Amino acid sequence: MGSDVTEVSRSRIFGGYQCVYSHDSKELKCKAHFSIYFPPSYDEQADERLPVIYWLSGLTCTEQNFIQKSGAQRYASEHGVIIVGPDTSPRNCKIEGDSECWDFGVGAGFYVDATEPKWKEHYRMYSYVTKELPALIGSTFRIDLSRQSIMGHSMGGHGALICYLKNPGKYKSVSVFAPICNPSKCPWGQKAFKGYLGSDETTWEAYDACSLAKHYKGPINNILIDQGLSDEFLGKNQLLPDNFVVSCAESKIPIILRKHEGYDHSYFFISTFIGEHVAHHAKFLKC
Amino acid sequence: MGSDVTEVSRSRIFGGYQCVYSHDSKELKCKAHFSIYFPPSYDEQADERLPVIYWLSGLTCTEQNFIQKSGAQRYASEHGVIIVGPDTSPRNCKIEGDSECWDFGVGAGFYVDATEPKWKEHYRMYSYVTKELPALIGSTFRIDLSRQSIMGHSMGGHGALICYLKNPGKYKSVSVFAPICNPSKCPWGQKAFKGYLGSDETTWEAYDACSLAKHYKGPINNILIDQGLSDEFLGKNQLLPDNFVVSCAESKIPIILRKHEGYDHSYFFISTFIGEHVAHHAKFLKC
Repeated sequence: MGSDVTEVSRSRIFGGYQCVYSHDSKELKCKAHFSIYFPPSYDEQADERLPVIYWLSGLTCTEQNFIQKSGAQRYASEHGVIIVGPDTSPRNCKIEGDSECWDFGVGAGFYVDATEPKWKEHYRMYSYVTKELPALIGSTFRIDLSRQSIMGHSMGGHGALICYLKNPGKYKSVSVFAPICNPSKCPWGQKAFKGYLGSDETTWEAYDACSLAKHYKGPINNILIDQGLSDEFLGKNQLLPDNFVVSCAESKIPIILRKHEGYDHSYFFISTFIGEHVAHHAKFLKC
Repeated sequence: MGSDVTEVSRSRIFGGYQCVYSHDSKELKCKAHFSIYFPPSYDEQADERLPVIYWLSGLTCTEQNFIQKSGAQRYASEHGVIIVGPDTSPRNCKIEGDSECWDFGVGAGFYVDATEPKWKEHYRMYSYVTKELPALIGSTFRIDLSRQSIMGHSMGGHGALICYLKNPGKYKSVSVFAPICNPSKCPWGQKAFKGYLGSDETTWEAYDACSLAKHYKGPINNILIDQGLSDEFLGKNQLLPDNFVVSCAESKIPIILRKHEGYDHSYFFISTFIGEHVAHHAKFLKC
C-alpha cells in the first residue's frame, strides 16, 4: 500500500474489512476522508484486482452514514466487490460562511467543480470523484479501474447520474436512490448551482442529469432508480424523477424507475434495496 | 391501539415498519422511548399475535443505535417476528450528576433496580424491561407474550443474560454479543453496582450472570454468545466470557460461545451475526 493515504479506522464486518482513510486532496486542497469496504476475497498480495462501486452520499452526510446504516457490506461481501464512499464536500477550508446552511457549503458540495471565485479553489467534488479519487485508490489498492460503477442517494444520486452521463464508458452502470434528477428546476439545486456556478443558467446544464440525458451519446446500461412514495422531498418537488424519465425517453436511454409505496427518504429505505443495487452492478461488473 | 403510547416515528423498511413510541413509565417515572419493528406479516386487525424478541443496548446507546445500524429488520421480516428495543436508562429525571459519566447514570442503567437512595426512585430498568414494557406492548399491540426471547450487546448482553436467568421460562431463548458476563468482577460493573446497589457485594449477586448461572434451576435452551477477538473491552477484562463458561458448566447450562477473529465491539460486528441470532430465537419461538 502506498503512503499517500492514512488509515483512520478498520473494522471487520461480514468477513471483510470496513476501513476509512484520509489523504491530502489536490483537487479539494484539504484533508479528505473516504470509506472503503474490502470483501473477504480481497487480497493485497494477490495479482487479482477487484471491481469497485462508488457510493455518493446526500446532503449533510460524511463518509460515515453509508457504512454505518446501509448494510451494503453483506452484499459486497457476497459479490466480491469493493465499495468506496467519498465525503460530500471539502472540509476545514476556512471559507467564510461555508457552514451556515445544511444545504450549501460544507456537507453539500453537489459534485460540481465550482466556478464562482469564493468556492472554485476548494469545491471541486466533480473532479475529485471522477479523477483524483479513482487514480488514488487504483494506485493504492488492488482495484480494477476498468470495472467501475457508481451509485448514490439524493444529492449523491444526482452526483452518480451526472458522473455516469458525463463520462460515457467510464462506469459500467449507475443506480440511484431518490436522486435529485433535475437540479436546475428544484430549490436545492438552484441554490447550489447559483452559489457554485453563478447566475448564468446555461452553465448549469453541464451538471443537470436531465440536460445530460437529452444529449447523451454513448454506451448505456439500464439506469436503476428507486424512489419512495412517502419521501417528503418528492412532495416538495426537490427530486423530480418524472422529468428524468422524459429526458431519457428522448435519448432512448433505458431506465428502471421503481416507485415504492410507504418508503421515505431515509437509510431505512436505502437498506431495504441496497442489496438489489449491488446485484445490479455486479451483473455489469461481472462479479 | 391503546392511547398509552405516542408514536414518535414510523419508517418503512424491508416491507415492515420501524417505529419508535414514547410513554410515561411508572417504573422509571419519566417519559421513556422504545423502538418496535413490525414485520410485513404483522396485522393490527387480525387475531393472530406475533412473537417478540427484546434487544437491550449497551452503554451510551438510546433506542436508536440498534435500529439504525444492526440491519436486524431484514431478518425479523423474513421470520415474522417483532423486535422491541428499550432505552438504556431513565432520562430527564433531574438527578444531580446523572450525566457526568458515560458509564454510569444516563445511558448506563445496567438493567438493575437501584436500591441506593439517590437512584432508587427512577433507576428501575430491570422491572421496566421484564414487567412494565412487556405488559405495555402486550396490551397495545398484537404480540404473543407466551413467545418472548431476549438478546443484547455489552451492558445489554449482561441485561439479557440476567433477565433470562432470573425468570425461568419467561423467555424462550437468550443470545448476546460481547456481554459483560461477570459485572461484580469488572470495572464497569463494579462502578455501576456500587453506585446503584451499594457497597454490600452480596447484593450484587442477584444481578450477576455468573452467580445466577451457578444457582440456576429451570428450563433452558442453548445460550448463544458471540465475542469478537479484537474487542478492546475483552482485553481490558470488562467482559469476562470465560468466567461465564465456568459458571454454566457447574449448572450444566448449555452454551454456544463463538469467538470471532478480527471482530471488534462495534455494530459492524453485530450486523455481521445478527441474522444468526434472530434465526436462533425464531427456532424456539417457532416462527
